[in-house]
Order: sequence, then structure tokens, then C-alpha cells
Amino acid sequence: MPRSIQINESGELVHLLTTEGIPKALMLRILDRAKAFLDPKNPKEVVNAPLLDGKSVFNLFFENSTRTRTTFEIAAKRLSADVVNLNVQASSTAKGESLLDTIDNLAAMKADMFVVRHGQSGAPTLIAKHINKVAPHIRIMNAGDGRHAHPTQALLDAFTIRHFKGDFQHLRVAIVGDILHSRVARSNIHALTTLGVPEIRAIGPRTLLPSGLKELGLQVYTDLSEGLRDVDVILTLRLQNERMRGAMLPSTQEYFKNYGLTADRLSVAKPDAIVMHPGPMNRGVEIDSAVADGSQSVILSQVTFGIAVRMAVMSMLAEARH
Amino acid sequence: MPRSIQINESGELVHLLTTEGIPKALMLRILDRAKAFLDPKNPKEVVNAPLLDGKSVFNLFFENSTRTRTTFEIAAKRLSADVVNLNVQASSTAKGESLLDTIDNLAAMKADMFVVRHGQSGAPTLIAKHINKVAPHIRIMNAGDGRHAHPTQALLDAFTIRHFKGDFQHLRVAIVGDILHSRVARSNIHALTTLGVPEIRAIGPRTLLPSGLKELGLQVYTDLSEGLRDVDVILTLRLQNERMRGAMLPSTQEYFKNYGLTADRLSVAKPDAIVMHPGPMNRGVEIDSAVADGSQSVILSQVTFGIAVRMAVMSMLAEARH
Amino acid sequence: MPRSIQINESGELVHLLTTEGIPKALMLRILDRAKAFLDPKNPKEVVNAPLLDGKSVFNLFFENSTRTRTTFEIAAKRLSADVVNLNVQASSTAKGESLLDTIDNLAAMKADMFVVRHGQSGAPTLIAKHINKVAPHIRIMNAGDGRHAHPTQALLDAFTIRHFKGDFQHLRVAIVGDILHSRVARSNIHALTTLGVPEIRAIGPRTLLPSGLKELGLQVYTDLSEGLRDVDVILTLRLQNERMRGAMLPSTQEYFKNYGLTADRLSVAKPDAIVMHPGPMNRGVEIDSAVADGSQSVILSQVTFGIAVRMAVMSMLAEARH
Repeated sequence: MPRSIQINESGELVHLLTTEGIPKALMLRILDRAKAFLDPKNPKEVVNAPLLDGKSVFNLFFENSTRTRTTFEIAAKRLSADVVNLNVQASSTAKGESLLDTIDNLAAMKADMFVVRHGQSGAPTLIAKHINKVAPHIRIMNAGDGRHAHPTQALLDAFTIRHFKGDFQHLRVAIVGDILHSRVARSNIHALTTLGVPEIRAIGPRTLLPSGLKELGLQVYTDLSEGLRDVDVILTLRLQNERMRGAMLPSTQEYFKNYGLTADRLSVAKPDAIVMHPGPMNRGVEIDSAVADGSQSVILSQVTFGIAVRMAVMSMLAEARH
Repeated sequence: MPRSIQINESGELVHLLTTEGIPKALMLRILDRAKAFLDPKNPKEVVNAPLLDGKSVFNLFFENSTRTRTTFEIAAKRLSADVVNLNVQASSTAKGESLLDTIDNLAAMKADMFVVRHGQSGAPTLIAKHINKVAPHIRIMNAGDGRHAHPTQALLDAFTIRHFKGDFQHLRVAIVGDILHSRVARSNIHALTTLGVPEIRAIGPRTLLPSGLKELGLQVYTDLSEGLRDVDVILTLRLQNERMRGAMLPSTQEYFKNYGLTADRLSVAKPDAIVMHPGPMNRGVEIDSAVADGSQSVILSQVTFGIAVRMAVMSMLAEARH
Repeated sequence: MPRSIQINESGELVHLLTTEGIPKALMLRILDRAKAFLDPKNPKEVVNAPLLDGKSVFNLFFENSTRTRTTFEIAAKRLSADVVNLNVQASSTAKGESLLDTIDNLAAMKADMFVVRHGQSGAPTLIAKHINKVAPHIRIMNAGDGRHAHPTQALLDAFTIRHFKGDFQHLRVAIVGDILHSRVARSNIHALTTLGVPEIRAIGPRTLLPSGLKELGLQVYTDLSEGLRDVDVILTLRLQNERMRGAMLPSTQEYFKNYGLTADRLSVAKPDAIVMHPGPMNRGVEIDSAVADGSQSVILSQVTFGIAVRMAVMSMLAEARH
């Protein structure tokens, strides 16, 4: 198995930075472990397991996100870890300290794991490379970095798809929206390709579709109804308000008219297609309320499974040898 | 026993939204439970009891209040719950997500209890109605909503009165100040009436007295000395600085002159009358320091009892069947 | 042993407000206790010890400092305490409540320990005097107050010096930088003098050297190379950016030229001299990166030892009779 910055010589995950390059077997191991954190009698319930008892998880959020931070905090606490929340933009970096000095200092406080959210693509990887040199027992989890990756989101999406669809081998998955700026889309494309999804479609306005999608094996559509035809899974992306204010899109009304997921549009997908969204939703922009709250929506299951998936990754990282 | 949104068919409390409509027997059960959380040898000490071990309490503060949040956090931790603090105005709602989407998401993270503070009257009730449909195992506690209610404050006030006065049957209670805008006053009037206080007086400037007080059975006074005559309990309300800046009041000096509780004014009450305040106090505005720190003040006991009362409500909510 | 506000009749530490006046034997007891919290097989590892199980530690930060708050939070959690973080400037004081009212309220919530950071010199002492009257079981730890004191920093510096140098009896220690405004310098001077360091040097520009240093037994230098000659320990102080913007210093470049610790400057110290810094560092201002990251730097050891020292003080305070 190829060794990388996030995988050690024994093939164990030592950091989670990106879904790119994680072997299929390891990815499935994460999903299986996550499943073990759900109550077998009630798969909507997450169990507690004191696997991180006595360990300290630091949430380092250089970019504010209460919701994402909470999911990691809950996951860590269900594993009995101590959790320290650090809103880092408000602190040391404001005093002019460098990113790596901040990391060195927190590492010296005897952290066991850093959950890192950062506006700059690559920041968690930079931190992991540095930590591997100075404090190799510390694990890094990427909670979203710039436009680069959001691996726990992709893994929980994969978990949700497998939960509702059984496997990945015969699926058509559509990713809809602002794929250009989306770390969620990027991480999903790598994960779903690795897991064996035979057909992934990218749907969005031309200005929000990056080049290179076809090279990744995707089929590209600019027409929503065409792209949704006969799909099994729809991953709706959040439209960032920032984009709207820029020149990239005319207006949210216009966007909804062309790319908003309505019941009508959904009807061209397979009758048992599931609708997913990473949250928070812009109702009436990328998704209509009738769909968001409809019987095909599995959006809230994603949230619950997200706790189990984060517990899975955290416990596997803690077990890996360094 | 009448079933309501906060009381189930067995008469158990499933949410705490308002003191209005809580039967006397149930209210007394809360006070008795709270008493059990005080050290019998030293009623100023709150004991620990792991009744919420493994449960997650989310503090959802849509309106900032470090002090109130801390009292709920302490109460939950003394019951061994995991506590997650969410300063919600800073997060998802800023991203344009609706209140109920935020609630759905947090519910899907497997919360067991939401403590909700919100600037809008009725928000916790709206949340409870929604939760009863989508996640009925989750309990809602109102930590103050607009001008509507602050039920834990009223219950801790009732506890304090019973602690110092023995019962409610023969008391004259005066509520002094800005009753118009006060959720504390509103919740206290409902609680004390239910508990059998025979005489409740409302005292304040005409502009800060709502209509309808007489219909609630209260006696209304605009003269402080007259209103305080022979009372057993004085509930002093905090004067919101915002009111001062509005047209409703001439100045804090003027307010203090007419409605500030001084030792001189206090002397017309019964000699063993107790002085209460929900905090934080404006010394020299609604209360003079000599009274705030005087021998009749039980203001700090209110704070301690508040921890026990919140523990009582939390543990009763957790035990109720849904 | 002289009784003081921070030492009881039995000579036990009941608060930690300043290193001034702490007897040598007690100071050494703190350092020995801290050593017991390091793994004997790996002195870079801090162990867990449930000595504060069931106790509540409140971090009261009237002045924001995420890093310092985190060190106390980690120390308290390693002792199994419940930790409540209060960013106090954002809360009650904004509502016009007095400092002591805030303290009384938090005390009534049944805290066991307050860690206090405050911009005003003397605030923690004021709080301790008040607490001794109203709630003598509560312990106060000063986490930095104005220009007055930062005792845990001085104790962890002493611990670091003893760790690397064996004892204090034959050392030459240089403190370099803005000594005038530095609570770290002040607390270190008292601690190191008590512990028997025979020669302490103060080095800095004349405008940043307070009067009275010679009376404290220090040798004063305005020339860095001269002051560093043959020293065993260099305590580099952080240059506050505020100073730079004031009239006190021409520019950071100018400061670095004259007082920045470079490898060249360091070479006049003893070959095995250690370099310390309380953090966060301004690289290229008071210290050059080659020195900060060099083999003589023990800056990150200071951070780790700081956790153990804070655990030591917390556990000793908790054990003391009141």
C-alpha cells in the first residue's frame, strides 16, 4: 500500500486531509467502523464509546463555523475525549504569530488531535507535514480548507449513499451547483470514484464548472433536467452568497429558475432517488422546500451519520501507530 | 391533568416553556426536587448527581447572556451531562438558514436537550412544537424569550421565597420596576399565583405598568412607599438601559429618586421582608447598595438556588416519557 | 511563616496572585509537585490525575487571551475538573455590573476556583480579598494582571530553568526587552531572586527599563552583547506591538538591530545557555528565527512544563484548608 502523508507504512490512516488517494479498502473500513457506532436496533441513534478517554481534541477553527465545529465536538465527546475549542483568528494570529508557531505551541500543550478548519487550501496539509516532524503522535483532521477538501463531509455522504442504496457499484450520482468553488464536490468526486460509483455527473452553469471534470471521469451537464435523468443520488451543493454578489451569477431567482431542485425537476430522476445537501441550505435558491422536506430527502440522516463517521475517523486515527 | 405542549398525558413535564399553566402540584414537585440537590447539612452547597450522564445538553443562545448560559452549563455539568455551547446568532442564521433548519440539524446531531434563549417571544414554544413532531425525545428549556417568559427564574424565585418564608399561603409579594417589558415579572406572576400567594402587588411608573394586571389579580401601585407597606417579599426588577435611552423614562437619577429601593423605603415593609433581584443589578438605579448588600438581601441565595432548580427541571425533563 | 492573602496560617497556598512573598520552600514544593505530573519515563509527557474531580474551575478572562486560557483549561481538565470559560468583557460588565457583583454571582454558582486575567493591575488581588470574606473556599489564580504579575509564567520559567540547569545557585540569568511594561519580568525577578539565582541582569533600551531595578539586586545593561556575556539563561520578552506604535520605540527594525536575539549575539553567552520566551514570539523583532528554532531554544518545553506547573498550583490550592 502506498505510504503518504496521511497513511503510514502499515496502511493505517494517521491524518485525514483529503479523500484523494485513500485506498478503497481503507475507505470502506472507515464506513464500517462508523456503522458500528450506530445502534443496531435503531440506526438513527449514535452510541457512546470511550475510545478517546483521556485524550485531548483541539478544534482549531481559523474560519468560523459553529455547525461544523459542533459536529466534531459532539463526536469527540461521544468518544469521551476532552475537547478544547479555539477560535484561532481571534487569538494568536491576531498578535502576529505565524501559523506554525501557533501549532507548535498547541502541540506542546499535549494535544492528541487537531481538527483544522482554514480558509486557505492546503493549510491542514502544511500543518500535518510540520507535525509529522515535530510531534508525530498528533493527528490532524481536515474540517474544510479553502476550495481544496472536506473529507469528513465526503465520507459521511458516502456512508449515507451506502446506507440507502446498499452499495456503490450500480449508481448514477449527480452533483449539482457551484462545483468550481466546492471542496465538498471535490472530496466527493474522489471518494465516490474510489468506492466504485460507475457514473458521476456534474451539473451546473458553465461559469461554476471547473475544467478537468471530464478528465476525472465525470459527465458534464449544464441542463439540470437532462443531467438528473435516471440518477439514483443527487448531491445538491450550497450556493455561497458571496458568489451571488460577485459577477458570476445574475441573481438567486435566476439561479433557482435554472438550477433549483424542485419536485418537478426531481421527477426525472429515478423514483427512489435520494436527495442530499451538506447544509446549511438556501431554501428557494439551490433547493425548493418541498424537496428539502420531502420523502426523498435524506439531509438530516447525513447529519446523524456525520457524527458516526467523525467518531470512526477519530478512533481510527487514535489507534494508528506513529 | 390537562395535556399541553409542555406536559404529557401522564402529567410529566416534557419541556419548560412558561410557568403559565403548570399545575401547583407539579410546580411543588420541581421545588422539592431542587431541594434534594442541596446538601442537607449545608443548604448553600449544591451536590453533584450523575442523572444526565451520557446525555448532551445544547445551549442555544440566539441572544447573548454569558451569565444565564453559565448557570445552565453548571447545572448540566453537575448532572454529568455533556454541554455544547452555541452562540447561534454568530453562526448558521448569519448564513441565512432558517431557525427550524438550524434546530433540525442540531437535533440530528443527537442532542437530548436544548436550552434556548431568544430575543423573540415565543421562539422556544415554536421550537418545542416542531421538535414534538420531528424529534420528540428532545427536551426544550426556555432560558428567556423576548418579553414572554423566563420560567427558571420564576421557579428559582419561588424556591427562594419558600426557603426563607416557609410557604406561600400568607405572603404579600411586591414586584417593583419595569413590569411592562419584564419576562421575569410575567413568569413570576403566573408561578406565585399558582403557588397560592394571596397578594401580589405591582409597583412602578405608569409608563412601565402593562394593562391587565388587575385582571391577573394584582394590586397596582405607582407609589413605591405605599406599595411596599407590610410586604413580606420584594422582587426588584432590573431596569434595562435601553428603556432609559428611549422616551419612557426621564433619567436614571429620576428613576432612583422615585423607585430605587433604599433602606428608608425598605423600612415600611415587614421587618423580616426579603429583597430579591434577578441580576445583574444596576446599583443606584433600581436598588441602593446598602439594600443590595444588606441583611435582608437574598440575592446571592437566588443564584445558588438557581443551579439546584435548573438541575431539578433538567433531571425531571430527562426522566419524562415521550 | 508569615500569613498573607495568598498563604494561610499553615503556610499553604490558598491563592496564587504573585510570586512576590512566596517562601522559597513553598516555591520549590510547587516545582516538585509539577515534576510529579510529568511522565518519569518521558518528561515531555504530562500525565492525568483526577485530583479536581467534581470541582468547577471558572476561567474569567476580562482580557482576551485564547492561548493562556487554553493552558489553564488543559491543566484543569487533566485534573478532571469541570471547566467553564467566561469571556467576561463581553458579558455582565457590558451591562454595567460591577466587578465584585460579577464575582459574587459566579461564587454563588458554586465555583471552586477562578482563574483571572485582567487588564488592570491588582484586580485578582482585589477579587481574592473579597472572596476571602464572602466565599473563602474559592481559590483565585492570577493569569496575568496589567503590568503587575504573571505568577504561573514565572513558576514555569523557574521549572524550565531547574529542568535544564539542575539548580539556581550558580546561574547568571539575563532578562531582555521591555522590562518596564512586563508582568512576566516582574514575576520572574521575584521568583528567581527567592530561588537563589545569584545574578540577574536586566537588558533593554533605557526607555523600557523601569527605575528601581538595582534596588531589587539586578545588574542593568543597555548594551545587549555586554549584558549577555557568560550568561546561563536568557529570558527574551515579547515586544508589545502597542509600544511600537507609541513614541517609546523608533521601529521594529531598529529594535531588532539593537536588541534582537541573533545567533551572533547568543554566541557571547555560555555555550550551553538556554533561550526562553513566554510567547507568542515576534520573529525578527525580539528574536531571530535561527535562535527561536535553534538547539539552545527551550521555548516549547516551557509550554509543556507550563501545563504541569498549572496542574501543580491548582491541586495544591484545592488541597489547602481555608
